[in-house]
Amino acid sequence: MNAQTKPSPTVFDVQRIRADFPLLSRTVHDKPLIYFDNANTSQKPASVIEAVDDHYRRHNANVSRAVHQIGEEATAAYEGARDKLARFINATSRNELVLTSGTTQSINLVAYSYALPRLKPGDAILTTVMEHHANIVPWQLMAARTGATVKAAPIDERGELIVEKYIEMLTPEVKLACVTHVSNVLGTVNPVREIARECRKRGIPLLVDGSQAVPHRPVDVQALGCDFYALTGHKMLSPTGTGALWARKEHLEAMPPFFGGGEMIREVRFDGTTFAEPPHKFEAGTPNIAGFVGLSAAIDYYHSVGFDAIHSWEQQLLAYATERLREIPGLRLVGEAKEKEPVISFLIEGAQATDLATLLDLQGVAVRSGHHCAHPLMQFFKVPATLRASLAFYNTREEVDAFITALLKVRKLLM
Amino acid sequence: MNAQTKPSPTVFDVQRIRADFPLLSRTVHDKPLIYFDNANTSQKPASVIEAVDDHYRRHNANVSRAVHQIGEEATAAYEGARDKLARFINATSRNELVLTSGTTQSINLVAYSYALPRLKPGDAILTTVMEHHANIVPWQLMAARTGATVKAAPIDERGELIVEKYIEMLTPEVKLACVTHVSNVLGTVNPVREIARECRKRGIPLLVDGSQAVPHRPVDVQALGCDFYALTGHKMLSPTGTGALWARKEHLEAMPPFFGGGEMIREVRFDGTTFAEPPHKFEAGTPNIAGFVGLSAAIDYYHSVGFDAIHSWEQQLLAYATERLREIPGLRLVGEAKEKEPVISFLIEGAQATDLATLLDLQGVAVRSGHHCAHPLMQFFKVPATLRASLAFYNTREEVDAFITALLKVRKLLM
Repeated sequence: MNAQTKPSPTVFDVQRIRADFPLLSRTVHDKPLIYFDNANTSQKPASVIEAVDDHYRRHNANVSRAVHQIGEEATAAYEGARDKLARFINATSRNELVLTSGTTQSINLVAYSYALPRLKPGDAILTTVMEHHANIVPWQLMAARTGATVKAAPIDERGELIVEKYIEMLTPEVKLACVTHVSNVLGTVNPVREIARECRKRGIPLLVDGSQAVPHRPVDVQALGCDFYALTGHKMLSPTGTGALWARKEHLEAMPPFFGGGEMIREVRFDGTTFAEPPHKFEAGTPNIAGFVGLSAAIDYYHSVGFDAIHSWEQQLLAYATERLREIPGLRLVGEAKEKEPVISFLIEGAQATDLATLLDLQGVAVRSGHHCAHPLMQFFKVPATLRASLAFYNTREEVDAFITALLKVRKLLM
Repeated sequence: MNAQTKPSPTVFDVQRIRADFPLLSRTVHDKPLIYFDNANTSQKPASVIEAVDDHYRRHNANVSRAVHQIGEEATAAYEGARDKLARFINATSRNELVLTSGTTQSINLVAYSYALPRLKPGDAILTTVMEHHANIVPWQLMAARTGATVKAAPIDERGELIVEKYIEMLTPEVKLACVTHVSNVLGTVNPVREIARECRKRGIPLLVDGSQAVPHRPVDVQALGCDFYALTGHKMLSPTGTGALWARKEHLEAMPPFFGGGEMIREVRFDGTTFAEPPHKFEAGTPNIAGFVGLSAAIDYYHSVGFDAIHSWEQQLLAYATERLREIPGLRLVGEAKEKEPVISFLIEGAQATDLATLLDLQGVAVRSGHHCAHPLMQFFKVPATLRASLAFYNTREEVDAFITALLKVRKLLM
């Protein structure tokens, strides 16, 4: 590993970082694991695992409801995670942050609570061809219920959004515009600021799916200028079952509640119930308390490494892996946008993606093959599936080399 | 502790069990903790905590999507939890079990996906006065959207459901009947079998909120005869952010999807999307994988102790605590049903519930004070709040004694 070649003033000590991630020292099929499935879910540093463990061993109680010591500790930890996450994405207020079980719940909350009551026949929701199903299907469900339609902005062969087309499609019948910050299949980074500016000019609220962005870059929702930003914890070093919806205060205040239940009410009567203020209005029931304790530790971990270092290292890995992949005969890259996060989709002529992935696994390499919950994107590229290698800052150049060696080997087996 | 007085042939070794729960050895305010807030959330045995820890250290990957080894391990663990939970409540099929983030999500799934498309003006949903808000507010939200109404069956002064009244209220306009299996405030066990029988006679589906039942007794959804059974993991030794909805196959098949997103589809196209079969149709996005790994270990733990032993011990504790509480001057029990789980609500004349709880906390005793997410029940008893001591099988008679001593002490301080 040549951290020395890195232009950054401080050397990025990836081996020290790897030591923080217990799972990375695993073997599979008697081979050292090469985990290149990070866009699917990230591994967790020991500090996150230990925070969850410690919570259950010492501070486990329900939140918001108890006057006792452990309840207060649990509440402080849970609400502390909200504070930390609010600062992490530069929300103007902690009250703009609804804690959810993940991006899917965050987007569905907007679908049911923002879109559904507003949409009428003739209205439209704008999304794009490159979205994950989580940023398509909720809109289709709402469209089916209301007589609205879902429009999808096109992309080009490089896997870049055709931004002028997206902007052109921001017509008056569009009541909500949606776009992913980073494509989960292509790695493409979309120009959210520009899109948000155009949306605001037209008075159209913009929802951004941030699942694949937050793990890789500092996100500033105020600077982006969007209206809704959905994110998921498990892709950003945090426990499964955690996520958030950031939304402008005025939207959260105007939105009716979504889930009914405990903690989201002011008073419940059979002759009329009143609701709590946001964000609690949208947080019915007992949340994933321990999960958010872990998310809090994950944010600390990101700060301890720093996004400058993460970004620089990941971009080096991305460039190196892309360059090495180009050496492989018959390999077709799917997604060659100018600005990318470290996600590489590809195909090899004459070999099925699933067969390749299965054989790579036997070499210790974990990649994903399939449609990546992005059927329309597969339809656009006229492929049933791709192989996807998605990297994280704890990956190394040596792993890229081993991956390439394995790929050459399994390719030969299948030819 | 007099396990010797227990009629069961095998001695219930509560100290051995307590050793399995790390948090129980904590102190608060320099006093040994007496955790009597189990209906709020249960503590977790080390085996559950370790299962979560081990999952993140060795088997963490996303489920259902990966062809690689770790993905297969994670999927086997997650789907194994579904199998185990299906057997735990005697579902006829694992496919009848939708894994959710908890009872609140389970009930809201039925509200949005079963009730909302069916309800029309003039229809009604029947619930009861003793329900948790999670079994009231979702129905109010659906009623408000559809012009249906919510009716609440009455209870008596002992805190028992007036079953003949409930049955009388099962009129033809009722499209869904709801009842809690066990009251979270009163401990009352409702005669679900009898209610289910009457519902079936009338062709009215029955939803049961099982949150407070599953931690205490073996639940057999087939024997109960209901249509929907909602439960939550964190009250049954499991991680936060876990739960399930069991529903009859015919309902799940007829219900439209709720959340849109990954893994709940067959094919997504902008000209028409098709959906997966249940239960996956209702499980969009990445679930709380590690949480369900913990839930799986929790079920093993229940089996290792056995519900016969648990029930017998908890009933002894309940009887003993109730008897001791009756000694306290000015104490009023709220909820004296014939059949109860170990939940005791009470008030002390001349003292605020919150003041009592705060002072009890200083003595190391964790109880809940407040409305317990059951405003209508508080309105029925004409009280703003109660104190609630809720016990679990890892509690002891000595803890009950210490609790009574503390209560007498703090009562004196407030008089």
